Amino acid sequence: MEILLAEHSGFCFGVKRAIKIAMEASDNKQPIYTLGPLIHSPQMVNELAEHGIRLAEKPEDLHNSTVIVRSHGITLSDREMLIKNGNTLIDATCPFVSKAQDFVKKLCSEDYPVIIMGDKTHPEVIAMLSYCSTETLVVNNPDELPERSWKKLGVLSQTTKNMSMLQELVGRLVPNVEEMRLFNTICTATTLRQDATIALAKKCDLMIIIGGRNSSNTKMLATLCAGITGILHVETADEIYAEQISSHHRIGLTAGASTPDYLIVDVYNKINELTGNRTSVKSVKDIPVNKEESC
Amino acid sequence: MEILLAEHSGFCFGVKRAIKIAMEASDNKQPIYTLGPLIHSPQMVNELAEHGIRLAEKPEDLHNSTVIVRSHGITLSDREMLIKNGNTLIDATCPFVSKAQDFVKKLCSEDYPVIIMGDKTHPEVIAMLSYCSTETLVVNNPDELPERSWKKLGVLSQTTKNMSMLQELVGRLVPNVEEMRLFNTICTATTLRQDATIALAKKCDLMIIIGGRNSSNTKMLATLCAGITGILHVETADEIYAEQISSHHRIGLTAGASTPDYLIVDVYNKINELTGNRTSVKSVKDIPVNKEESC
Repeated sequence: MEILLAEHSGFCFGVKRAIKIAMEASDNKQPIYTLGPLIHSPQMVNELAEHGIRLAEKPEDLHNSTVIVRSHGITLSDREMLIKNGNTLIDATCPFVSKAQDFVKKLCSEDYPVIIMGDKTHPEVIAMLSYCSTETLVVNNPDELPERSWKKLGVLSQTTKNMSMLQELVGRLVPNVEEMRLFNTICTATTLRQDATIALAKKCDLMIIIGGRNSSNTKMLATLCAGITGILHVETADEIYAEQISSHHRIGLTAGASTPDYLIVDVYNKINELTGNRTSVKSVKDIPVNKEESC
Repeated sequence: MEILLAEHSGFCFGVKRAIKIAMEASDNKQPIYTLGPLIHSPQMVNELAEHGIRLAEKPEDLHNSTVIVRSHGITLSDREMLIKNGNTLIDATCPFVSKAQDFVKKLCSEDYPVIIMGDKTHPEVIAMLSYCSTETLVVNNPDELPERSWKKLGVLSQTTKNMSMLQELVGRLVPNVEEMRLFNTICTATTLRQDATIALAKKCDLMIIIGGRNSSNTKMLATLCAGITGILHVETADEIYAEQISSHHRIGLTAGASTPDYLIVDVYNKINELTGNRTSVKSVKDIPVNKEESC
């Protein structure tokens, strides 16, 4: 059995940056907080807690504290309440998410109704929506578009959605608009991870997708692989059993943008252990990488 | 043999309007001029000449005359020269073409590089280009798009191009832009004629497309039909011979937006004559129409 890792996987720029900001803000004496998980990796959130970075669920629970704004951003009203309650905010919003928020503000200030391609229950989209002052619609995919037309229309996407899906959505809107102003807010890291994952999935009879079940970009990797080959979405190596993998010849590994490297290493070692292979690695750099993708 | 006419065919709003403006301006005493053909129908242009509406090829040939601006619009420099030479301009530019010119001016005034989907040798596109002050590219179809990316990009179309082609082009551009501002300048008449023609072509073993060989929208109808069934593109009934039509069971007729009704009637009567059918009509309203298209 062969195990290959997708060329682009694991922590993206925005996640690395958010963790760095949070770790630098933590002095290990007084707890600091994030409103909602800093990133969508329960394992990483637990690790952060060990460094005094605690998770708060509601803005009204936080007073006179240091609060790290999560990588997905927070709503305008949450931000206002945190400030009103005397908290000091440190912004770890991913710069690509901040940019998307700026674009949505710009579209609304110029009176464009807005369509956001995204998951309306995801914190990033909820935060974006809080900056909208015009008619706004969130659709998860092109099939959810209503049958209507617009004189002018703004379009943008949750940063972790799929590019082909955005292309399809924008194409479908063309006959129904006089003017359409698109901001392509899908981040480069997302596209690289998706392209590399698809390329690898095409060569494998099983893809193991490693990452938070609450992680939108990880779930998108799983969805894309599901159309190509067998899949297993796990958060940790503990979820993998011998019978799930024993019959496969080539297993591909990929990981969401919020998945720490050590979870990928754990999965790689676990597969080898379960299949009686003595290979074991210490670093993600030692896992064979699929270099042939066309991204 | 059955003969059916596409539900939407022949003169569009802009063409009817241009002819009306020209006829009203003509007093049959002193000749008036159009710079280039008023519409792309050589037969109609000849008819206009009989009413004293003459064709001029170059702006420098016109001095102190009444000049009708053709339905496709004219370039900024031609307009300026005509005015400088003391001519009186009467504007018969199709309002949809004028709107596209306004949009291109708006995009350029806001520093958008512009892609126009159209035929760069067509007067409408040449006129549009004359209003561009930023980097501009004309592509005839999505395959002609260059491999590059844009921070911001304006997109519009010649009014008579195909909607699916514009959808495809816009979709392909999505991954290569940060911002794309599309003005959907394909006119409703174009889409109605194309949809009705495609619906009819699917039922026929021969489509006869009637209209000027210099007419962009007529050529587009022919191109669309060519992908579905046999085609014959004619300007007049004189071009139709018995051997071209005798083996067919159902012949569809369609006509470009600049094709006068009498040419459609001529073709219908000619087919009947060549196939020994005594049916003959006087008006286009008497030709059986295909009512089942999905447009």
